[in-house]
Amino acid sequence: MAKEEKKGITSKKKENFADWYPEVVVKAELADYSAVKGAMVIRPNAFAVWEKIQAYFNPVMKKYGVKNAYFPLFVPESFFKREAKHVEGFAPEVAWIETKGEERLAVRPTSETIIADSFSQWIRSWRDLPLKINQWANIVRWETKQTRLFLRTREFLWQEGHCVYETEEECAKEVKTYMDEYVRLCSELLAIPVVSGEKTEKEKFPGAKASLTMEALMPDGRAVQMGTSHNLGQGFMEVFNVKYLGKDEKPHTPWSNSWGISTRLIGAAIMTHGDDKGMVMPPKVAPIQVAIVPIIFEQSKKEVLEASKKLKDDLEAHNFSVVLDDRNEYSPGWKFNNWELKGVPVRIELGPKDLEKQEVVLVRRDTSEKHSAKIANVKDKVKDLLETMHKDMFEKAKKFLLSNIIEVNSMEDFIAKIKERKMVLAPFCGTPACEDEIKTKADGATSRCISDKRMPENAKCVCGKDAKFLVYFAKGY
Amino acid sequence: MAKEEKKGITSKKKENFADWYPEVVVKAELADYSAVKGAMVIRPNAFAVWEKIQAYFNPVMKKYGVKNAYFPLFVPESFFKREAKHVEGFAPEVAWIETKGEERLAVRPTSETIIADSFSQWIRSWRDLPLKINQWANIVRWETKQTRLFLRTREFLWQEGHCVYETEEECAKEVKTYMDEYVRLCSELLAIPVVSGEKTEKEKFPGAKASLTMEALMPDGRAVQMGTSHNLGQGFMEVFNVKYLGKDEKPHTPWSNSWGISTRLIGAAIMTHGDDKGMVMPPKVAPIQVAIVPIIFEQSKKEVLEASKKLKDDLEAHNFSVVLDDRNEYSPGWKFNNWELKGVPVRIELGPKDLEKQEVVLVRRDTSEKHSAKIANVKDKVKDLLETMHKDMFEKAKKFLLSNIIEVNSMEDFIAKIKERKMVLAPFCGTPACEDEIKTKADGATSRCISDKRMPENAKCVCGKDAKFLVYFAKGY
Repeated sequence: MAKEEKKGITSKKKENFADWYPEVVVKAELADYSAVKGAMVIRPNAFAVWEKIQAYFNPVMKKYGVKNAYFPLFVPESFFKREAKHVEGFAPEVAWIETKGEERLAVRPTSETIIADSFSQWIRSWRDLPLKINQWANIVRWETKQTRLFLRTREFLWQEGHCVYETEEECAKEVKTYMDEYVRLCSELLAIPVVSGEKTEKEKFPGAKASLTMEALMPDGRAVQMGTSHNLGQGFMEVFNVKYLGKDEKPHTPWSNSWGISTRLIGAAIMTHGDDKGMVMPPKVAPIQVAIVPIIFEQSKKEVLEASKKLKDDLEAHNFSVVLDDRNEYSPGWKFNNWELKGVPVRIELGPKDLEKQEVVLVRRDTSEKHSAKIANVKDKVKDLLETMHKDMFEKAKKFLLSNIIEVNSMEDFIAKIKERKMVLAPFCGTPACEDEIKTKADGATSRCISDKRMPENAKCVCGKDAKFLVYFAKGY
Repeated sequence: MAKEEKKGITSKKKENFADWYPEVVVKAELADYSAVKGAMVIRPNAFAVWEKIQAYFNPVMKKYGVKNAYFPLFVPESFFKREAKHVEGFAPEVAWIETKGEERLAVRPTSETIIADSFSQWIRSWRDLPLKINQWANIVRWETKQTRLFLRTREFLWQEGHCVYETEEECAKEVKTYMDEYVRLCSELLAIPVVSGEKTEKEKFPGAKASLTMEALMPDGRAVQMGTSHNLGQGFMEVFNVKYLGKDEKPHTPWSNSWGISTRLIGAAIMTHGDDKGMVMPPKVAPIQVAIVPIIFEQSKKEVLEASKKLKDDLEAHNFSVVLDDRNEYSPGWKFNNWELKGVPVRIELGPKDLEKQEVVLVRRDTSEKHSAKIANVKDKVKDLLETMHKDMFEKAKKFLLSNIIEVNSMEDFIAKIKERKMVLAPFCGTPACEDEIKTKADGATSRCISDKRMPENAKCVCGKDAKFLVYFAKGY
């Protein structure tokens, strides 16, 4: 046996989260740094998660009549300038192409403008509405803040939906529809609970009338914006001169929305579920769900390998994704560590003694719990384990989220709880100036979203003014 | 009924191919021009074709152990410069990012260099090989030549595979493997026949040891490069310092290849199969395979719509993709034209008289042939029609290709046949200088690929020198 490299995680999640996270990302081969500052390489172990997200969400979008398309990477500078708040919001982080003589071109930080321009060509009458388009694309935002793999990089992958409607009602309704689908995706696919609601005036999308968001709380007490859905009103439609001839034979301006989720979700899944042994893949997006490690001794090698191969074929026939690790050059112990590091939900060990009893040992990645099962029943056992794991992982994360949301009523408590890295729920007056002040006083905390919880009567904002609603605040990344 | 717009194709494919092509692309809603010069919007009707190509080719790659990943859009300038021929080949068409103070960054025109840099981090020992990675990505080449939707745009989508091997033999073998798979994809999925072989010295990929290509001949007598597979030798591995520790415990330089197909394939499918009524979708990539148009009269409306809906559900249950066009605001004739324009392979007409007989009329998009079938047998009939259509479309295109390849032996014939827009097969000496001369004399014809046909003994190149092989030449786009 050749010398085996040690690749285990050395940082501890609880003790040093800031070191632990990038160590897991790199060693579990999820992503890697690149020669381009602030950009990242998404490696197969994480890219497969993104493909599972796509495979889940494409049929969801199809259900609502959304069709996939692809729009140019480049956006003319003049397009940005048409919507005053949009250019103000995005200008600081736009990367520009060196164009000689031609108009300056941005590398898309988002595509509302270039898509609205196409819509102005395609939409003629009420018959063309609603028009629902999505693209899966790369996005560039020239971050000046510290970058962080998956969470904040100069390039990332996302999905951006752009829909146009005849009426304000339809538009607003679907802003909510897509957000509800995102929340469901987080819980059902990634086992991540979120709080969801409207963004405050200060935090809403540049150019939007209103933005919905969903926010997850990471183990270090920071919040991650997991996805947004924006009601754009008639703003972009007006400045791009999108008009339709109504049933009344008169021209009207339609209403539009846009909504997106990104590869950032993968970062949140790593932070939420990973542990000191590495990644823990949510079972429904795990690129490999089961790793079979045969325990090889010379005299029983043939039988054990044959049984392992048969087990793999059987599980694959039932649509589980399985790897049989029959490599000679690594020991079983090294293999256990390796598949744990990568996050594979279930490990199956099969040795000569197991084979005699026609049994295998199954090990759950999240709890290290050992189970045994008859070979004939392995597929049912695996199905059970994956379902239970998903449920347990979600419940564990939900318990963490709920127990870390603290209601506060004074600035003093607010500051204290943010320092303890809690998510606070506070009555808030809604003014951007107050939000700025909070950010300065409370260690950079920002509003995450407006809660739909009922506010106590006559509640006061931490600034002393009358509160308008309850708002979740936390530090972000 | 509201006023119906006329959207039919006005150009004739035979008479004015150069006008016909963009008219079909735009009116069949396959792609559209964008505000960014030379870039295009890929609309849902064509993007769905790209998704079918992905759905076909992902499992093919998986079979060979290729895994999907994603690498940065940006490539440091210094990376290009490491491989002298690579930078020479790509420099003229690179778009650069305005970077202030930091190193100049290219928007990827291809990713050999940035990927080789990652490989240098990931490859340590023979255990890490072969390493087979693919990415589906957008690519930017700042074309100065006239752009053409799908065929030559400043941005396009592609798939680029990048594999690293211990031995030269494995590497060369798989260069051929992926090309064979591409040829199969063209024939089995897109119904497009190609000639395939090695590129000449002049036309090979900048930095490659050898390039394989496949070339299709369009109805206007121009060739389209449909996909390439490059044997990169050890060049990129050497300059990016990729080394592995062999079983002999010594460091070695591995061998690499790269291979790609792009959205250009969609352009070739439009040109090959489209007609004066619009697009003709190859059945296996058609976003909609069947359009059901109910023929509505007031007294039988309910029954006809119910039967149409039932037929749709039945066909969908058998995995056909179906649209039921029950819109009130358009006439059946308008709908026929519309689905023909979009290229839907089979149209089903269902009126009250058909319903009485429990029959429908089916119309083949490629031949306009009408068939009738009992409603109970429609699914089998549709299956047959789609299979026959695919076969017929491929055979028709193959007949065109074979009858338009002309063997020539003199420069005079060469020039004459290129003028007639034939693809010529000529004995060729292989020197870049001779190829330049041919290009000048023969109306811009370029070598497409080396034929594996046996060359007559003592054959002379059109320049008079001894020929080395038979080469296909044609005008490109």
